[in-house]
Amino acid sequence: MNTHEKYMMRCIELASLGAGKVSPNPLVGCVILKKGKVISEGYHKKYGAYHAERDAITKAKRKGIDLKGSTLYVNLEPCSHFGKTPPCDELIIESGIKDVIIGMKDPFHLVSGKGIKTLKKAGIKVKAGILEKECRRLNRFFCKHAVTGMPYVTIKTAQTLDGKIANLKYDSKWISSIESRKIVHAMRSRYDAVLVGSNTVKHDDPELTVRLTKGRDPYRIVLDKMLEGTIKRKTYTDRNKKRTILITSKLADKKKSETLRRRGITVLTCGTKGGKINIKEALMKLSALGISSIIVEGGAQTYIEFIKKRLVDEFVIFIAATVMGKGIDAFGEPMDFKEFKVRNYFLSGNDIVVNYRKN
Amino acid sequence: MNTHEKYMMRCIELASLGAGKVSPNPLVGCVILKKGKVISEGYHKKYGAYHAERDAITKAKRKGIDLKGSTLYVNLEPCSHFGKTPPCDELIIESGIKDVIIGMKDPFHLVSGKGIKTLKKAGIKVKAGILEKECRRLNRFFCKHAVTGMPYVTIKTAQTLDGKIANLKYDSKWISSIESRKIVHAMRSRYDAVLVGSNTVKHDDPELTVRLTKGRDPYRIVLDKMLEGTIKRKTYTDRNKKRTILITSKLADKKKSETLRRRGITVLTCGTKGGKINIKEALMKLSALGISSIIVEGGAQTYIEFIKKRLVDEFVIFIAATVMGKGIDAFGEPMDFKEFKVRNYFLSGNDIVVNYRKN
Repeated sequence: MNTHEKYMMRCIELASLGAGKVSPNPLVGCVILKKGKVISEGYHKKYGAYHAERDAITKAKRKGIDLKGSTLYVNLEPCSHFGKTPPCDELIIESGIKDVIIGMKDPFHLVSGKGIKTLKKAGIKVKAGILEKECRRLNRFFCKHAVTGMPYVTIKTAQTLDGKIANLKYDSKWISSIESRKIVHAMRSRYDAVLVGSNTVKHDDPELTVRLTKGRDPYRIVLDKMLEGTIKRKTYTDRNKKRTILITSKLADKKKSETLRRRGITVLTCGTKGGKINIKEALMKLSALGISSIIVEGGAQTYIEFIKKRLVDEFVIFIAATVMGKGIDAFGEPMDFKEFKVRNYFLSGNDIVVNYRKN
Repeated sequence: MNTHEKYMMRCIELASLGAGKVSPNPLVGCVILKKGKVISEGYHKKYGAYHAERDAITKAKRKGIDLKGSTLYVNLEPCSHFGKTPPCDELIIESGIKDVIIGMKDPFHLVSGKGIKTLKKAGIKVKAGILEKECRRLNRFFCKHAVTGMPYVTIKTAQTLDGKIANLKYDSKWISSIESRKIVHAMRSRYDAVLVGSNTVKHDDPELTVRLTKGRDPYRIVLDKMLEGTIKRKTYTDRNKKRTILITSKLADKKKSETLRRRGITVLTCGTKGGKINIKEALMKLSALGISSIIVEGGAQTYIEFIKKRLVDEFVIFIAATVMGKGIDAFGEPMDFKEFKVRNYFLSGNDIVVNYRKN
């Protein structure tokens, strides 16, 4: 690892501290060096707060440090537009910074390169593409959302060695180890939302919150075309119910959906296609609400729908050391996995966790 | 790692060179040190050849080295009995070696500690139990066989993420990657035998030899109660057929089994229990033939029989990144995996390989 990579890695580390708090903004970290020494660090702490560059520059100024001639590292191209805060490129120029080292360009094609151009015009030396792969990985939610206007979708399953996610009676809770469940809760705190189908709500009545680790609760999304079952489930009644989003159709029980609305639950009505909710439409609507990342936590029918429509970006599969024999298959249909490669795998309790991604 | 562990690790390394060649003897390596310097190394090269201690001592003597006052490392307690070669403990005593450092005691309770006792009586300082766990792991085939009189059994499956080993038509060859198949061939070269059921012979007509890597072919064992199918399969006809062992029952087609015998195939007739061949009896007969380790390579019914009878010591499961949907389950019945822990796991191509063992 050379010097540039070393400080870019530190930017990634700092950026990660904002995980789960900045969406739909990107995760950004920033390090400023002068004469080879780190004089300031910053990161984007939460949506609406200072960008990482502004955070680092402001801190340095507060300490009375003159930034003239210094080098700034940042994992994402500095912004060139007014958003919640004024543009960072101008701030960098004003501060007298001489070199800017960037991890990756802005993925959004209308903005990409603009920040770099402005900096260069002002006489700043710019170098981009340091640990680019790692930077893209860090901001894969943001990249997907910025480029396609769709949320990044991860399917998470906890399955037995023979690919079962539940027994035929649906009363086989906790297939995976406590260690694995902690990892899932940590994932929830970093994704904007968790999505389940109506069968899962019916059989498991899950909370879908973050309890086994610290972190903020995600939005809970329920896919339920008909709204036939009870609306006494936790997702519709607990203290978190205002963070529940119901995706339903015109076929749904009007009375029930009205009741849910009154409870503060967001109800999105989508079209149907082949007897199923049009998931792509649903994802676009969720994206418009600012949701840039979703974990699909089940059940089997919901997994299949997402896979069939090619809406999955990533799989995280917890494989427990048990064999159920008969049970509900995670993916009851053949599936083309060719684009997905193993990108990470590890042991969690006695479970093997495998992470498949396209990139 | 301290000095003792360092040289014991070297013994294990040397011992491993005999893998697949010494069975049913143990894998043994030996290092001799004098004044802190390695003066000789040896290992058990093949069944009937010198034991590791004799190999190392003989080499040293040939070089004219006086072994007086030297230290001998060996991963298994030196033998105290006449087998194919005279006992090693006496040879060690004669040679003037002062210290003997041992990985593990002989696992066979009637012999265990005898070698150590003789050495101590002769005034040699003995220390045992260095890297004992690693030494037991290395010789797990030998330990099982010596202690129980039964072969060590490993189930190997190549399955999809949803636990399928074949499609319903049985024409889905090569579920796992070429890298994984190479690993399986390397495994075959280190186990005494590969076992399959009659369905696998019928549908796959496998060779069960070592082709994708260097190494000797294992014995091939076919479980076939009735011998209903054709005997034109590779296991019964190719140039390796004399290394095929058929396990069958009294219900088998007499003519066919006689033909197979005439071709040089070993035919073992076992009793039946609940409509199935008595596998325990079969394993005991195989053990008596000197077979101390078996890979069970399928199919599903054979896996289930071994699992139900609790005859499995280890699982090596290759999980490919594909989903079959409908197909033949590796283990079509519930299975208690509690005693099995993940002991190793790695990536092989785009497959995840998981190794479950009891110890």
